[in-house]
Amino acid sequence: MAGCCAVLRAFLFEYDTPRIVLIRSRKVGLMNRVVQLLILAYVIGWVFVWERGYQETDSVVSSVTTKAKGVAVTNTSELGFRIWDVADYVIPAQEENSLFIMTNMIITVNQTQSTCPEVPDKTTICNSDSNCTVGSTGTHSNGVGTGKCVPFNESVKTCEVAAWCPVEDDTGVPTPALLKAAENFTLLVKNNIWYPKFNFSKRNILPNITTSYLKSCIYDAHTDPFCPIFRLGKIVADAGHSFQDMAVEGGIMGIQVKWDCNLDRAASLCLPRYSFRRLDTRDLEHNVSPGYNFRFAKYFRDLAGREQRTLIKAYGIRFDIIVFGKAGKFDIIPTMINVGSGLALLGVVSGPSCCSLLIQTGPSSGISCTATVLCDVIVLYCMKKRYYYRDKKYKYVEDYEQGLSGEVDQ
Amino acid sequence: MAGCCAVLRAFLFEYDTPRIVLIRSRKVGLMNRVVQLLILAYVIGWVFVWERGYQETDSVVSSVTTKAKGVAVTNTSELGFRIWDVADYVIPAQEENSLFIMTNMIITVNQTQSTCPEVPDKTTICNSDSNCTVGSTGTHSNGVGTGKCVPFNESVKTCEVAAWCPVEDDTGVPTPALLKAAENFTLLVKNNIWYPKFNFSKRNILPNITTSYLKSCIYDAHTDPFCPIFRLGKIVADAGHSFQDMAVEGGIMGIQVKWDCNLDRAASLCLPRYSFRRLDTRDLEHNVSPGYNFRFAKYFRDLAGREQRTLIKAYGIRFDIIVFGKAGKFDIIPTMINVGSGLALLGVVSGPSCCSLLIQTGPSSGISCTATVLCDVIVLYCMKKRYYYRDKKYKYVEDYEQGLSGEVDQ
Amino acid sequence: MAGCCAVLRAFLFEYDTPRIVLIRSRKVGLMNRVVQLLILAYVIGWVFVWERGYQETDSVVSSVTTKAKGVAVTNTSELGFRIWDVADYVIPAQEENSLFIMTNMIITVNQTQSTCPEVPDKTTICNSDSNCTVGSTGTHSNGVGTGKCVPFNESVKTCEVAAWCPVEDDTGVPTPALLKAAENFTLLVKNNIWYPKFNFSKRNILPNITTSYLKSCIYDAHTDPFCPIFRLGKIVADAGHSFQDMAVEGGIMGIQVKWDCNLDRAASLCLPRYSFRRLDTRDLEHNVSPGYNFRFAKYFRDLAGREQRTLIKAYGIRFDIIVFGKAGKFDIIPTMINVGSGLALLGVVSGPSCCSLLIQTGPSSGISCTATVLCDVIVLYCMKKRYYYRDKKYKYVEDYEQGLSGEVDQ
Repeated sequence: MAGCCAVLRAFLFEYDTPRIVLIRSRKVGLMNRVVQLLILAYVIGWVFVWERGYQETDSVVSSVTTKAKGVAVTNTSELGFRIWDVADYVIPAQEENSLFIMTNMIITVNQTQSTCPEVPDKTTICNSDSNCTVGSTGTHSNGVGTGKCVPFNESVKTCEVAAWCPVEDDTGVPTPALLKAAENFTLLVKNNIWYPKFNFSKRNILPNITTSYLKSCIYDAHTDPFCPIFRLGKIVADAGHSFQDMAVEGGIMGIQVKWDCNLDRAASLCLPRYSFRRLDTRDLEHNVSPGYNFRFAKYFRDLAGREQRTLIKAYGIRFDIIVFGKAGKFDIIPTMINVGSGLALLGVVSGPSCCSLLIQTGPSSGISCTATVLCDVIVLYCMKKRYYYRDKKYKYVEDYEQGLSGEVDQ
Repeated sequence: MAGCCAVLRAFLFEYDTPRIVLIRSRKVGLMNRVVQLLILAYVIGWVFVWERGYQETDSVVSSVTTKAKGVAVTNTSELGFRIWDVADYVIPAQEENSLFIMTNMIITVNQTQSTCPEVPDKTTICNSDSNCTVGSTGTHSNGVGTGKCVPFNESVKTCEVAAWCPVEDDTGVPTPALLKAAENFTLLVKNNIWYPKFNFSKRNILPNITTSYLKSCIYDAHTDPFCPIFRLGKIVADAGHSFQDMAVEGGIMGIQVKWDCNLDRAASLCLPRYSFRRLDTRDLEHNVSPGYNFRFAKYFRDLAGREQRTLIKAYGIRFDIIVFGKAGKFDIIPTMINVGSGLALLGVVSGPSCCSLLIQTGPSSGISCTATVLCDVIVLYCMKKRYYYRDKKYKYVEDYEQGLSGEVDQ
Repeated sequence: MAGCCAVLRAFLFEYDTPRIVLIRSRKVGLMNRVVQLLILAYVIGWVFVWERGYQETDSVVSSVTTKAKGVAVTNTSELGFRIWDVADYVIPAQEENSLFIMTNMIITVNQTQSTCPEVPDKTTICNSDSNCTVGSTGTHSNGVGTGKCVPFNESVKTCEVAAWCPVEDDTGVPTPALLKAAENFTLLVKNNIWYPKFNFSKRNILPNITTSYLKSCIYDAHTDPFCPIFRLGKIVADAGHSFQDMAVEGGIMGIQVKWDCNLDRAASLCLPRYSFRRLDTRDLEHNVSPGYNFRFAKYFRDLAGREQRTLIKAYGIRFDIIVFGKAGKFDIIPTMINVGSGLALLGVVSGPSCCSLLIQTGPSSGISCTATVLCDVIVLYCMKKRYYYRDKKYKYVEDYEQGLSGEVDQ
């Protein structure tokens, strides 16, 4: 019982701390202080000023809607004079973070379910019915083979297929693009952001933007950096590409919206920054399967009630809106951790290298490190018997020249 | 050679560990133990119980499909009595994590490619042909100017355009919303989740949900929290908004599905939690360009084979389904690291503040720290000569009063 | 003033470092070295070789486009002989990272706005008008009740509704799937990736792929692992499911593209890896609401100008393309940090356990730890008075047997 008590007393009333050699040397001391000065500069400069170590941070949550405007005119032999507006060239009508604008197309009108010759190709050209297989469907064929060899035009015969006839002939892409006027179309991007931790929300149509300004403005990085209406040609040009080149075979553009906000400053200073990038890399030397296109159809009924369709191979530019950013706001926890680490780094107390790690790690490590540091500070600087304890913890070593003989082991 | 051997022997057979001052003082010792008690409470309470430090965690991988149901009736002068079902009001028919339900619209029927007067506007109103430019296409115009000034109605003349005619007049949004009955439409959300690390998958249609329950249930946070069928009006109301207000000009709703699972417990306890939030912020003071709408068209052929279309400016609510969550399961690695750190924090061995960092860092740091700690534990507690080694490592310092003279430097 | 100067001098010219006990013992020394050897093996093996600790890393940014090819034939009583091509079975025509291919359907042709009997169901079967409510719209009804009870067929009477008539009867899904030939359709996935930090971009159509190879190749994990054209049947089979089963009721397939690149090696070795997974879990015991389907309509005008539509309940497979991966490239900062930590871990200097943490933490902690370590190295190994300082820092403890009496406290 008595032994047990002694153990408990020892457990409760003892405190241990590493013993330190204190070297009194100009060279070493100065070197040490220079290192500490560098650390101090790092802590203040990098951690506090640059990285804003006193702030809690949060990532952006965003919702995006888009609306295109503009009218184009085409005058082709197939369609005659024709006006194209938003409902014609935006396909599908709405997407979540994306908008496709058709800039070029191959139209095959009045297709019906019937039989017709295939487009000439090394696998479809034939001399007689024996070259054609009944029921064959290759990956690139437009229909199912009927087994007949029929004239495609005066000079060439191809295998006949049951398909939507006449079949599409997409051998030549119209150049320049049919809807080349799309360069002057405009795109309104409406973006609402939310920082959940700070319950801060804002939209890219800033409070000082009036309805009349919104009706007339066009984004320009220098003159109108906060106008959310973009000229398509300018988007592509800012990304370093040619709109007219891109319009022919299509492509994908990224519209990046960056919301980096310091919420310690006025909310009106939290502003979107726009930038543009082409997302489909163009490799001029290796131009296999370039651009962006897809097929869709508009279905009709003829007078006899039979289904007809207009097949459109649409080439165009898909605009993907990518929203990112983070917000910071003063918070006592990260501030305390970083101040504590900064002090520790400066060698006010033992264990500097250990505590320096805190800068990069989380709040919980901060708590225990601060505890240890605090104990030492209290013992060595605040208690009545501080000199006595320091005496025990530190061994003072004079430099050779100054007092080799004077030293005493403590 | 002999010197080399000596160096090697010294290298192999030496071990160093910091020297410690052990202070025998009630004040300091108790303070130290109180700090350690706080750390222990933190380790057990926060790291183990709250943060589940003994678990490996993984993020959710999810796939979502949605299906709306419901029928609405409109009776307008333009369209007459008309029934709207899913295929009419969901546009496009399917999206990846999103569903748009049209609640209001401006319909312009029987548009054809021809010429007609523009909608009156400060830029389109004219007195004579000299006010109108041939070939002009403004950003907000519906077509290409023909240069003529023609009567829009009895009192106003506007510039004529080649366009889809008659042009849309969207000056007034129908109020209340045409499809106001959409408040009672239902939305079935099917969500499959997967935790790759644990190869655990589950869907939000729980095993105890029968086909008959699924046919009749409606989500309610209190009575039916696991029914995956939502009444649209309830979604908007739970987010604190009015469905009928939102239906007029449209908006975006987020349906958040949270899957936080403790896989140490029964799989049947891993359940989805639903919450709702309006994603497009409504700022009543600054109401420039509110709501959500887009245009699409349905194309027809008239008896002469000319293309006609019905243009619809669709206002509605887009429901974005956002799935998030993480799962945890017991794993020996994080458990060992956290137990080790906990012990170190308690000062069983030297280097407490250092090891506390482990709680926040990865398994590899755990390995080396545990190694160091282990060495010290073995040397100071398990070896035969432990008292001898402790004697060398520790310097015992009695408190002033208790035995200033009794101490010996060691 | 003089006191102040003394304090400043002490501050500038002092350096402290923990005192160390150096134990000369075979057992302990060897144990310590073995532990260090394990740490060395860990540092070199895990940190450098496996985790590539000498590299800076970056996450992939990606854009995806898809294109399906293939033709199917159906021969049903409703539609007769009919060819289906891309524009018919891909709905909608384009999505951002996803593609839906219709494999089965229930078609209801020539629907018009009129009145007709509901599909028989326990809520719709009636004996007389008194069973039917005027204006009722249940969640599962196809229209608005007219209050009449009319014959559905010879034996059953149901309530009449104003709806798109005749109403869809989806009680039986066609088995096998109508477009079962979709198994042989192909899917071209075009994927551009970008690593922003290294400004490295690449596409999955590799430079050595020629146009003719791209026209004929089909992906196979063994023979053609870099062909970006996938047979739909193979995708489903590789994920361990049956295409024909999946085609009947639909489902969701994930196509995972992994780009893990070591940019220290040739760019041509940065290659995509494809894998496939079914994203909608199939639980055979609990098969409530299986598969994936949605409804859409094609709108027509009849000769009288009245709107008609063909309603299609489309069953099919949605292919979600999921791109992930990370790239690494040699960088001096992470290399220095990891080499420094490795040295510290080996106990060349004091504070091994502390520095080991660096491996997992960021560059800033590296800076200050390296600083401390450097100071000690210079003082104890490089300065003229190194033996003197070591004498003060270290206390040499011989093992019992070897020289208990020989030790001197220092």
